[in-house]
Formats: sequence, C-alpha cells, structure tokens
Amino acid sequence: MDTDSNDMNGKDSYSLRELGDFLGAEIKGDPELRVRGIAPVQSASPDQLSFLTDSKYRHVLSECRAAALIVSPEFKDLDFRLLITSNPSLALAKVAGLFSRAFAEPFEVHPTAIIDGTAVLEGKVAVGPYTCIGAGCRIGGGTRIGAGCFIGPGVQVGEGCAIDPRVTIMNGCVVGNRVIIHSGTVIGSDGFGYAQDERGRHYKIPQTGIVCIDDDVEIGANVTVDRATFGATHIKRGAKIDNLVMLAHNVVVGEDVAIVAQVGVSGSTHIGDRVMIAGQAGLVGHIEIGDEAKIGAQAGVMNSVKAGHVVVGSPALSHDEFFRNIANIRRLPRLKEQVKRLSERVQGIEEALRDGDGHHRD
Amino acid sequence: MDTDSNDMNGKDSYSLRELGDFLGAEIKGDPELRVRGIAPVQSASPDQLSFLTDSKYRHVLSECRAAALIVSPEFKDLDFRLLITSNPSLALAKVAGLFSRAFAEPFEVHPTAIIDGTAVLEGKVAVGPYTCIGAGCRIGGGTRIGAGCFIGPGVQVGEGCAIDPRVTIMNGCVVGNRVIIHSGTVIGSDGFGYAQDERGRHYKIPQTGIVCIDDDVEIGANVTVDRATFGATHIKRGAKIDNLVMLAHNVVVGEDVAIVAQVGVSGSTHIGDRVMIAGQAGLVGHIEIGDEAKIGAQAGVMNSVKAGHVVVGSPALSHDEFFRNIANIRRLPRLKEQVKRLSERVQGIEEALRDGDGHHRD
Amino acid sequence: MDTDSNDMNGKDSYSLRELGDFLGAEIKGDPELRVRGIAPVQSASPDQLSFLTDSKYRHVLSECRAAALIVSPEFKDLDFRLLITSNPSLALAKVAGLFSRAFAEPFEVHPTAIIDGTAVLEGKVAVGPYTCIGAGCRIGGGTRIGAGCFIGPGVQVGEGCAIDPRVTIMNGCVVGNRVIIHSGTVIGSDGFGYAQDERGRHYKIPQTGIVCIDDDVEIGANVTVDRATFGATHIKRGAKIDNLVMLAHNVVVGEDVAIVAQVGVSGSTHIGDRVMIAGQAGLVGHIEIGDEAKIGAQAGVMNSVKAGHVVVGSPALSHDEFFRNIANIRRLPRLKEQVKRLSERVQGIEEALRDGDGHHRD
Repeated sequence: MDTDSNDMNGKDSYSLRELGDFLGAEIKGDPELRVRGIAPVQSASPDQLSFLTDSKYRHVLSECRAAALIVSPEFKDLDFRLLITSNPSLALAKVAGLFSRAFAEPFEVHPTAIIDGTAVLEGKVAVGPYTCIGAGCRIGGGTRIGAGCFIGPGVQVGEGCAIDPRVTIMNGCVVGNRVIIHSGTVIGSDGFGYAQDERGRHYKIPQTGIVCIDDDVEIGANVTVDRATFGATHIKRGAKIDNLVMLAHNVVVGEDVAIVAQVGVSGSTHIGDRVMIAGQAGLVGHIEIGDEAKIGAQAGVMNSVKAGHVVVGSPALSHDEFFRNIANIRRLPRLKEQVKRLSERVQGIEEALRDGDGHHRD
Repeated sequence: MDTDSNDMNGKDSYSLRELGDFLGAEIKGDPELRVRGIAPVQSASPDQLSFLTDSKYRHVLSECRAAALIVSPEFKDLDFRLLITSNPSLALAKVAGLFSRAFAEPFEVHPTAIIDGTAVLEGKVAVGPYTCIGAGCRIGGGTRIGAGCFIGPGVQVGEGCAIDPRVTIMNGCVVGNRVIIHSGTVIGSDGFGYAQDERGRHYKIPQTGIVCIDDDVEIGANVTVDRATFGATHIKRGAKIDNLVMLAHNVVVGEDVAIVAQVGVSGSTHIGDRVMIAGQAGLVGHIEIGDEAKIGAQAGVMNSVKAGHVVVGSPALSHDEFFRNIANIRRLPRLKEQVKRLSERVQGIEEALRDGDGHHRD
Repeated sequence: MDTDSNDMNGKDSYSLRELGDFLGAEIKGDPELRVRGIAPVQSASPDQLSFLTDSKYRHVLSECRAAALIVSPEFKDLDFRLLITSNPSLALAKVAGLFSRAFAEPFEVHPTAIIDGTAVLEGKVAVGPYTCIGAGCRIGGGTRIGAGCFIGPGVQVGEGCAIDPRVTIMNGCVVGNRVIIHSGTVIGSDGFGYAQDERGRHYKIPQTGIVCIDDDVEIGANVTVDRATFGATHIKRGAKIDNLVMLAHNVVVGEDVAIVAQVGVSGSTHIGDRVMIAGQAGLVGHIEIGDEAKIGAQAGVMNSVKAGHVVVGSPALSHDEFFRNIANIRRLPRLKEQVKRLSERVQGIEEALRDGDGHHRD
C-alpha cells in the first residue's frame, strides 16, 4: 500500500539479506539463504519464511522446517534463523505482500467486457469477462477489474486498484489509487431518503451525490456504500471496511479507520481518523466520532463520541460506566439480600422498642 | 411514485409558476423564472432551485445564488425568491424527482441480454447487458432492468420499475409497478427451513412459495427477501426497505412501512401499515407488529407489539420502561450507598441499644 | 441430502404405499391413492398431500380436499386419509424434497459460459449463462451452477451441488457434495487482517488460505465467508447458514450447526457440532463454542461457551443469569421503594431514641 516496497516487487525469491534490508530487521543466520514464500510454523517448508508472535507456539519450533522466522526481540536468543524486528506483524504483512504480488496475472481486457467508446483505460488495465464500463469512465493504470462488474457512467477509478468480481460502482463515483473492493460490494446505491406526506406515504428524495473513496482504502465483500443526497459520501485514505458493512448517505469515514463486519453507520455521521469500530456496532445519523475513538462490538452509538474515548453497549456508554453498570447489575441479588437483612434488623429493633424495655437482643 | 406528476415529467426546465402549481406552493418572486435543477444552498447556481429547512443555515443565504428557495411558512419573510409550502421536504422530494426523471436514458434491450422466447416485454423496456430473463416472464412497459441481473422463470415485473444492475429475482416472484430494487439484492432465495432427525441432522423443507412485492416499493442494496415455504412473502404498497435488510420466509410487510438498514425479520412475522423499524433491529418469528408501531434501533423484539406502540432495547420493552430501567441502573451506585449508610445507622442504633441506655448518639 | 431417497427420485407421482414405505409411516386410507405434490391444508388439491402439525388448524380440516395428511400419532384417530409418523416435519421435508427434485431442468452448459480449457466438468453439469469457471477447476457430476457466477481458478466443487445465480467462489476454495449456495454469496473473500505501523496505518496481511465447505452444507443469500490467513476457513458437513451471515477468516463451523441470518463470527472462532446460533448474534474471535451449545438472538459472545450451554444477551450470559438480571432490573423500583421505607423507619427509630424515651411509635 505504501510505495517503499516497489523495488522489491515481482521476484520469485528473496535472500534473508534482501528481506532484512527491506524490513529494517536484524538477521541471525546465513544472509544468502533464499525464501520463496511464507507459511505458519507447523507447515512451512525449508524454502519458506515463517513467524513466531506468541510464546505459546514455541514448543512447535523443534519440528519447524522453515528457512527462518520473523520474531520480536524477545525471541532473539532462539536457536533458529531469525529476522528480528520490533513489529513482527507488520513485517509479516510486508513480506507476505511481496509474495502475493509475485503471482499476479497478466493485464488483459477480456473480449466480452463492454467498455463504452468514451471510457478511457490509462495504461495496463485488466478487465474481466462480462464486465461493463460506462460512458466517460477513467480507469487508472495497473488496475484490475474482475468478471461481472458494473462500472456506471462517469466513474473514476485510480491506479493499482483491485476490484474483485461482481462489484457494482454506480454512476459518477470516484475511487482513488490502490483501492481494493471485494466481491458483491455495491458503491453508490441511493441513500434511504424520503419525505412523508400527510397520509404517511413516502416520497423518494432523489440522491444526486456520489461516493468518493480515497487512496489505499480496502472494502470487504457485500458491503453497501450509499451515494450522498447532495455532495459525497466520503471514505478517506487508508480506511479499511470489513464485509457486510453499511455506510449511509453523506457519511464521512476518516483516514486509517477500521470498521469491522456488519457495522451500520447512519446518514451524515462523521467518523474521525484512526477510529476503530468493532463488529455489528450501529451509529445513529448526524453525530461526530472523534479521532482515535474506539467503539465496541454491537455498541449502539446515539451521541457524538470525543476523540480517544471508548464506548461500548447499547445505548453506548463509556467503557468504564458500561462495565460498572454490568457489575452493579450482577451484584443486585446481594443488594436485595442486604436490604432484606436490614429490614429484619430494623423490625427487630422496632419490636424491641415496642416491648418497652429498650434493650436489643441479637 | 404517485401519478400526480405525470404531466410534469420529462422537461429540462420549469418556471416557478409551474412548480408552484405542481406543489400547491405560494410563489414569492418572478413566476416566469425558469429552473433546471436542484442543489443545496451553498452550491446552487442561478438556474437551480434550493431549499432551507433549518434556520441554522440561514446565515449562508447572503451568498446563495439559487433561483429560488423552497421554504416553510416560518421563512416567508425572507428577502429571497421563495416557494412557500407547509411540507418543504415533500416539495423537495417532488421537485427533485422531476429533474431526476428528466435525464433518463433511452429504452433499449442490449443485444447480450438473454431473454427467453416465451418471456413478454410489454412496450418500452430497457434491459442491460448480460441480463437473463427466464421463460414465461412478463416485464411491464417503462421498466428498466440493469446489467447482469438474473430474472428467473415465471417472474412478473410491473410497469415503470427500476431494477438496478446485478439484482436476482428468483423463479415465480411477482413485482408490482414503479418498484425500485437496488444492486446486489436477492428476491426469492429459499427460506431457512429444516426438519431435524433424531441425530440432529437438518433436512431441507423445500420452499415452494414466492415473494410478492406490491406497487411503489423500494428495496435497497444487498437486501435478501426469502420466498415463502408455501404461499408468499409479501411486501405491500409503498414500503421502503434499506440496504442489507433480511426478510425471512412468509414475512408480511405492511403499506408505507420503513425498514432501516440491517434489520432482520424472522419467518411469518406480520408487520402492520406505516410501521417504522430503525437500523439493526431484529424481530423473532410469528409475531404481529401493529399499525404505526415504532421499533428502535438494535431492538430485539420477542413479542407482538400493539398498534402505535414504541419499543426499544434487547429484549425490547416499551420506550418508557426501557429508559426507566436505564435510569435505575445508572442510579444503582447511589442506591448501594444509601443501603450502606442505612446499615451503618442501624448498626449505630443496635449498638446504642446493646449499651443498654436506649439513647442514641449521632 | 441423505442418500436414502435416491431410488424414489424423479417421479411425477407416488402412491401412499410408496410414501409410507419411504417415510416408515403408517398408512390410513387407500394405499394406492397417488399424490403429485404437497400443499398446506387450506389449499391442497385432491392429488396433493398435506400435513397437520398443530391442533389449532384442526378446524379447517372439514374443508380440506387433500389426498392425505402427514400427521403425528396424536392425530391418528382423525377421520381422514393419513400418513402417521413420529416426526411429521421431517416427513414433510422428505416428501417435499421428492417433488421439488422431480421438476429440475436438463443439464446444459450455456454457450456463453466461459470455462477455462483446464477446468474439468465431471459428468452431467449445468452451467448458466455468463458464468466464468477458472483454470484448474473441477466440478462434480449432477452439479448446477447458475447464471452470472464467478468460480475462480483452482476451485473444486463436488457432486450434486446447487450454486444459484450470481455467486462468487474465489480461487482455490473447496466445496463438497450436495452443497447449496444461494444467490449473491461470496466464498473466499480476503479476511480482515492488517498490521499497524507506528502511525496507525494498516498494512494488509495477505490472506493466502482457502475456504473449505464439506458435504450437505447450505449457505443462504448474500453471505460472506472469508478465506483463511493461512490454512482454511472450514464449514463442516451438514451445517446450515442463513442469509447475510459473516464468517471471518479461519472460523470453523461444526457439523449440523444452524446459523440464523445476520450472525457474525470473528476470526479463528471454532463452533462445535450441532450448535444453534440465533439471528444477529455476534461472536468475538479466538473462542470455542462447545457442541450443542445454543446462542440467543443478538447475543454478544465474548468468551468461550461450554458444550450444551445456552447463552443470551450482550455481553452474553447464561440464559438463567441473563433473565435473572432482567427480572432484578425490573424490580429495581420496588427495591428503591423498600430502601426508602426502611430509611423512614430507621429515622423514626432514631428520632424516638433521641427523644430519650426509648419507646417506639408506629
């Protein structure tokens, strides 16, 4: 997604020295050893790299045949070939990315693709069978569009994108560079907007805006992103959207946001940068989620959330208040019991006093 | 969606007088002024109509270049060209609808569409590339079916519908007039019905019914509506269904119902007319939701709801009870503190009495 | 789904004797009576079978024209032609299955299907228009693949499957025998996996595994099943997955599991055999759900669940604890009132003692 790996791309194998330089990792073992792929510790072959991120898997190392392991400094004393780095997950992502790109198919426009005469494919573009690209579209170089997609009139797609099979991008929407969209996703469907007459009938408010997706965004499978009523529904650079998420009209998703599967965001809500939204959470419309806020799974967010805050539950509360409430609810039987005993003690006192002696017996 | 706009359709521009008559709105300004579109206050050009529905946007009027504004009577003294109406949102919807229809494409059947010889297209119908229309289908005049759709055998679609690209309508389903179905939606998939044998294995109960969608329904993107086990899953006139909603087998959705995104309705539940169901709510099967009931976002509705009632929460309670519960939970720390202090006071009394003097010291 | 019905398939009509033998049911009435279909009591014609599973429908029998009824032994004294069996729902499923299979279309590969030269169709296979089948695929005999599907390179599909129109199965995934996949579903999209750098940017962790679906699985419409990071996301024999469900990377779904619509299961969670998960529930990642556990609708499961246990609510609790909490919350107004009265009584005592007489007046 960043450009720092460009000179490394497209090779079948890499030496540990090349990978160490690429990752900024310390090498332990023969730097000329070459690796051709990456696999888990249990299944890696002698020409594959592997990784160890959790000491609970340490015991399987005795049978590990991998060429070398990506590890954090805590494992630096292991008796194994190592690439030692402070962020092994990131190193793993970068190396796996190198190999996954090495096997890409050639750029071809399938003869059954229907591309309007006014659409422009800039440089090498792959278009799959039975895909339709409308009038006035521009598709950037290095972009691959899978089979059976519908790219409506006037859509712009940037460079180096991967649009998987059976994706819809409706008219006028704009997609940046290096964007990945998985199968079944619909970009630019109409927002859910109606005016009601006096009988309660719904009149459609035409949705004349677009969806704008910035660079390095990834959108999962069967997601829906509605076009704006006016203007643009906007997903900013680096945001990652999981499967079956719903983003309503005029939503803004900040940079490097992560939205897990089945989340729903209602109209005109603005999500700040680096916000994390866990699965199945729902956000009402017209609120603001501050930068780096975290929203728990299944949370029902009915109010704006300040930057950096963590909310959970439905209706959503601060993390602390939510779990205090939960704890208090669980303690209710004890509280009831306390009140019952207290009542008995008071009754004992009242009876003692009524007996007139003023003395209390336990 | 109603027919009252038919004589107004298909023009590139309208005079304020025409729009005033069409909307039943009072005109302030030159009635012969012509407008060619609609846009928000900030971006409208001098030949576009705009609207003001909230006084908080009043300050931007000084820079507004719009031909005129649609407003409610509270804004009638504004120094601007106005169309004054009691329901500006509805007026906006109606006018925007005029313009959105003005730019529609011609009716063509793409040569790659595969239309069974026994299917009937009545009058002008548009069918996109790579769409399949099965044996015995009837498609009404003025209907547009996008690219890459699958319309199974025996499907009926009425007049003036818009079926977006990549929609599935499985065999035998019936769609009324002026229905809009957005991309990725599946109508008529099998209901989730199984019988279990003594080992807990599931035997599929064939789903032999259909889905019946009445006039003026709109269904969002990537929705699923299952066919009935027997009979019909039924969506009645004017209902509006947002993206990623799930309607199970034999569900009935009443007239002018609005169902927001990601709602799930389980089998055989009947939803009355003009019910509103907010996002991500879930309804169990075999219940009745009375006319004009309202169901809150993420509600988990486990029992029937009476007409006009409002339920929220999971499990769903009446609006009042739910928020009373929430308030009581939030007050639990105070209640605990009260019990603790009370306990101390009782202990004080007990000790005083045990001391034998019967006198109480604070 | 089982093979015990094979010799019965493909007929237009069956005698009651044949059905009685097939189902192991007792026959009451003429065993040579022939039936040609199945329908509800109210609408069955004289050559159709019907069923009575609930005594509340008994009153409609007087007008029932069905050839015979499938009933449980409790109805054995009804004055009607009967097939008496201990599990009428299962019998209904089996008989309806016979008839639904009798009307299947011929096996054809549509000339517009694009099938790579290295793909193998074993025996009779149906492939719909505009479907693409990639290099190295194997499709088993008796399998039907609908229109507009994308079957990526290296996919294996077993025998007797029904892949509905507009399904995606991405590269390398493996599908067993007699699997049903409904329209719009995406198998093998990338898992949602990223490593973060020090600025909070997300680096994609390539998802190099597959999805493996075993025999007799059914998957609903617009479902998403992500491929594993390494290895396989695995759905075991007989599991049934409803519409719009999300199964994340490396999830394992046990045998004969039922997962209702809109459930989300996070990465690497393992679901045991015969587990039932009700609609809209969400499961966090890396937990274990024991065999035959039950998870309530909208539950938010944050911890492993033991075999046979029932959990509900969000966060999920045992069924008993959840409903005890609910009951305790509803009793809070009473508890508050008790504390208030207790406080008044204590105050009364304190005042009496302060008065110095030690006597208590009610």
